[in-house]
Amino acid sequence: MTHPHTTTHARAGDTVLTFRREFDAPAELVFRCHTEEALFVRWMGPRGTSCSVERFDAATGGAFRYTIGAGGGAGYTFFGSYHEVSPGRIVHTWEFEGEPGRPTLETLRIVPLAAGRCALEGTSVYTSIEHCAEMLDFDESGDGMDENFERLDVLLQTLA
Amino acid sequence: MTHPHTTTHARAGDTVLTFRREFDAPAELVFRCHTEEALFVRWMGPRGTSCSVERFDAATGGAFRYTIGAGGGAGYTFFGSYHEVSPGRIVHTWEFEGEPGRPTLETLRIVPLAAGRCALEGTSVYTSIEHCAEMLDFDESGDGMDENFERLDVLLQTLA
Repeated sequence: MTHPHTTTHARAGDTVLTFRREFDAPAELVFRCHTEEALFVRWMGPRGTSCSVERFDAATGGAFRYTIGAGGGAGYTFFGSYHEVSPGRIVHTWEFEGEPGRPTLETLRIVPLAAGRCALEGTSVYTSIEHCAEMLDFDESGDGMDENFERLDVLLQTLA
Repeated sequence: MTHPHTTTHARAGDTVLTFRREFDAPAELVFRCHTEEALFVRWMGPRGTSCSVERFDAATGGAFRYTIGAGGGAGYTFFGSYHEVSPGRIVHTWEFEGEPGRPTLETLRIVPLAAGRCALEGTSVYTSIEHCAEMLDFDESGDGMDENFERLDVLLQTLA
């Protein structure tokens, strides 16, 4: 059995990846941490970084643009648009500005579990087989989302 | 040799389709017909339909929502968001409201050709292998984009 706080990754097509991560918090709270700017900036990015928001409009037809920075560095800027935001469901694009021309379409579902817990289930589609393979390597290395989600665990405890 | 006004379709992955269509008009004009509402509504949709726009903001971070209708029917509503709009390049999501939960990420490139002509090259990525296979069948049936593009041919002649 997988530890409940492990992020699991899988392929669902040669340009499609899925992931799943459980949280010890209600689905509504995890949804708010994805859609409210004041909460989002408290967990997005690896430990020791800060998230500086230029635009954050997490609603259907909205968009975002933010920079993850550490210390005096220039930081990493990400942007995208929200195709759909509805309770328990976020469909958005995203792209790392440092690698232009490689957009991703991500669908997030936040599914209630027993005992006030929930699971975040994601599907990411890439525009090329090569980009998808690179991202799977990155995710499986553990350098990807795990630190974000550990920071989100801490934030959820604070909010509980 | 393929007739230059034929739309060609291909697979680029098990959830990725590409298409290519040439036009007898400059790239800038074909780009404007995709990004200016007053031009867009004159060709989007099959012959005999009209396009009624609720939102049309074809800029990076913008969004759209429109309904294709014929006569007294209820029409078909499509919505999506613009991930990136820059000269010769449009990256957007789209979804048919009648089949919710099946978003598509589409990248359009408008490439200048000799003699004032251009080619529209598209890449569509779907979130499932099944949806991609259905769309390839639909595109190859000729019922999909061909009438739109024939209407665009006529509009481009009018504007020339």
